[in-house]
Amino acid sequence: MLSALALARRIEAGELTPRAVVEMCAQAIAARESEIGAFAALDIEGARRTADASASKPLRGLPVGMKDIFDTVDFPTAYGSSIYSGHRPKSDAAMVMAVRRAGGVILGKTVSTEFASLQPAGTRNPRNPAHTPGGSSSGSAAAIAAGMVPVAFGSQTGGSVIRPAAYCGVAGYKPSFRLLPTIGMKAYSWSLDTVGVFAAGVEDVAFAAAATTGRDLRIDGTTANAPAIALLRTSMWSQASADMQAALERAARAAEAAGARVSELVLPEIVEEAMRCHGIVQDHEAFRALAYEYDNHRDRLGPMLTEQLGKAATITTDQYDEARRATRRARQAFADLMAKTDVILTPSAPGAAPQGLGSTGSPMFNRLWTLLGPPCINVPGLADKAGLPLGVQVVGRFARDKVALAAARFVENVLKD
Amino acid sequence: MLSALALARRIEAGELTPRAVVEMCAQAIAARESEIGAFAALDIEGARRTADASASKPLRGLPVGMKDIFDTVDFPTAYGSSIYSGHRPKSDAAMVMAVRRAGGVILGKTVSTEFASLQPAGTRNPRNPAHTPGGSSSGSAAAIAAGMVPVAFGSQTGGSVIRPAAYCGVAGYKPSFRLLPTIGMKAYSWSLDTVGVFAAGVEDVAFAAAATTGRDLRIDGTTANAPAIALLRTSMWSQASADMQAALERAARAAEAAGARVSELVLPEIVEEAMRCHGIVQDHEAFRALAYEYDNHRDRLGPMLTEQLGKAATITTDQYDEARRATRRARQAFADLMAKTDVILTPSAPGAAPQGLGSTGSPMFNRLWTLLGPPCINVPGLADKAGLPLGVQVVGRFARDKVALAAARFVENVLKD
Repeated sequence: MLSALALARRIEAGELTPRAVVEMCAQAIAARESEIGAFAALDIEGARRTADASASKPLRGLPVGMKDIFDTVDFPTAYGSSIYSGHRPKSDAAMVMAVRRAGGVILGKTVSTEFASLQPAGTRNPRNPAHTPGGSSSGSAAAIAAGMVPVAFGSQTGGSVIRPAAYCGVAGYKPSFRLLPTIGMKAYSWSLDTVGVFAAGVEDVAFAAAATTGRDLRIDGTTANAPAIALLRTSMWSQASADMQAALERAARAAEAAGARVSELVLPEIVEEAMRCHGIVQDHEAFRALAYEYDNHRDRLGPMLTEQLGKAATITTDQYDEARRATRRARQAFADLMAKTDVILTPSAPGAAPQGLGSTGSPMFNRLWTLLGPPCINVPGLADKAGLPLGVQVVGRFARDKVALAAARFVENVLKD
Repeated sequence: MLSALALARRIEAGELTPRAVVEMCAQAIAARESEIGAFAALDIEGARRTADASASKPLRGLPVGMKDIFDTVDFPTAYGSSIYSGHRPKSDAAMVMAVRRAGGVILGKTVSTEFASLQPAGTRNPRNPAHTPGGSSSGSAAAIAAGMVPVAFGSQTGGSVIRPAAYCGVAGYKPSFRLLPTIGMKAYSWSLDTVGVFAAGVEDVAFAAAATTGRDLRIDGTTANAPAIALLRTSMWSQASADMQAALERAARAAEAAGARVSELVLPEIVEEAMRCHGIVQDHEAFRALAYEYDNHRDRLGPMLTEQLGKAATITTDQYDEARRATRRARQAFADLMAKTDVILTPSAPGAAPQGLGSTGSPMFNRLWTLLGPPCINVPGLADKAGLPLGVQVVGRFARDKVALAAARFVENVLKD
């Protein structure tokens, strides 16, 4: 994998040109893209021409992959759907512009599942191509894992950043809700859609988020105090694989051995039960956000999405309103809870990437956090017996993203020892 | 003006066809559109062909005007900017689909100021064409006032629904934040952009909102209890015209005479001072939402918008974050305050529509409410000495839109007596 931060430092020091980084990406793409299928569109020549001009900007001319649900003027944007095959938007999404303003060079559009839904796309997992890379940000996670780009952006409405990051063994960062703009990104659920960042390690996602927002989010060069960690198995613990359970326990023990205060956490009922609200809010909004496609091009939608939207049509506004109110109460209870700890440590997914491409896996360990909106980071570094990556997830306090990133880096480091 | 509710009832009773309503609109358009300029695009023939097929649906095949910042597949969508001249989006905005699903027939796209900013467009006020209709939903308000459509949709980021409704003497309804979806609407500020409804009277906007959301918002046929009204002059009272001041006092006295409990309200400092946050939040987000246009087509932006975005570039993330926190505190304080009354009665604008088309007037009496998110209704029926409309504004509790609409109808009725 290509460390965005390490590359940026070498460019800053004059030891490397952005153009040379484009060549590293081009090599990895030449070696593996035909097998992995991480990209929906690529423009390596364009990146070669323009990268060096951005060397002095925050992202240092680094190549970036953008999930193909972000509108781009200079790449086709199909949102993972044949309905939009060859579509050329008239403007760039706000996040695309944030990347450009920061001096990132968009190397290509990474594969999204259909409208970022659970309907799988064809991308394979670079750690084992017989397995799914997860979804819906399938291409972004796979492109990082295969060393094809040092930075990629995706989105999470259920578990579409943290889960594919876990399955592909890369760092994934879902910031606090609305830290990164969703304008110009194909909408699924306006209360849940969250832009996220993929890179090799935790310092790399923090670097990319800092560069594109101008916010104080970098954690490299800082000395990390050992964090207070609340270990959370959740009520779905029995659905996590034995390897996943062991990985979480190992991460907690390693953090404790390195000085972290580790406590056990059981979520209050009002927070835990809010998870049921996720599907109601998501689907009620998706039936409206994807109304044009559902009403006019249903024959070109995949079976999973068609079925989901069909059920979504029956959710009443009363059910939706009640779910929104329950979510608000759960957010308040969660904020109170988080006053007592720095971060939560919990699984990123039920286990390693499932075999086959028929499913992108389950977002069950992600949906509550997407609903509540706090920062989440997938920490890579663990594996199951077959050598497939297992991710543990650090969940922070809302709007305290830097503390969460620093704690995730702490966990990442203790797993290397 | 055409009352949407009265027309819908006649269609429901079989006394009128939707096609006949299209002809009423066509006549008004033929009579006044060349002078007023309410529409950016029109398809009267299309409406003639399709209206009758929707007679049994909630909107009864009524013709609808959509502000030209909502994406439409079958009309050009230019967002009030030459950058997008002739642009044909690939999908319909969620609100456009809500209208279609409800059986509304989109007759045309109404003129928006440039990206719904303060930069005026050429639409004239039907009450006096030497005056502005207000903005940014200039065409939607003017089309209602001129009887060209019975229902129109617009948006408010500062005061873009309530102000033009007041200036044009029509009912305008800015619902609770996010009651109507903004997906597929050109974004200016994602924390503030609010879809709104224009129609002849308060019962008509309630009818249109109920029909497009499936929510219990209709107030016709209900018996209105006299509401508890808090009269609010605000700290900007001295900037309201003498006619406006007198109009508000008259509305309050008339409501009191009809049985309403009217009290005087002074906003707590924490709420009143939050108004300063509006510009910070709006402009910081606009610099990101309109990044593509600002960075790539600055020469095609109007001078007011260019200057505003240039200043917006200097707002720091710390300033933005502080403004968001102050807004959250003000929302909580406002919710506590509103537990003691049904609605607030306050000016919709500083006075009647200013002369000339060089300015769309001031949103000073609207920005706080857009920031805080409660339902607001412009109640028409009053006028200044020159006969130009003056609007008073009913502000309700967040998510209690029906109560606010019923109170606005109460005020509307007492002004008729």
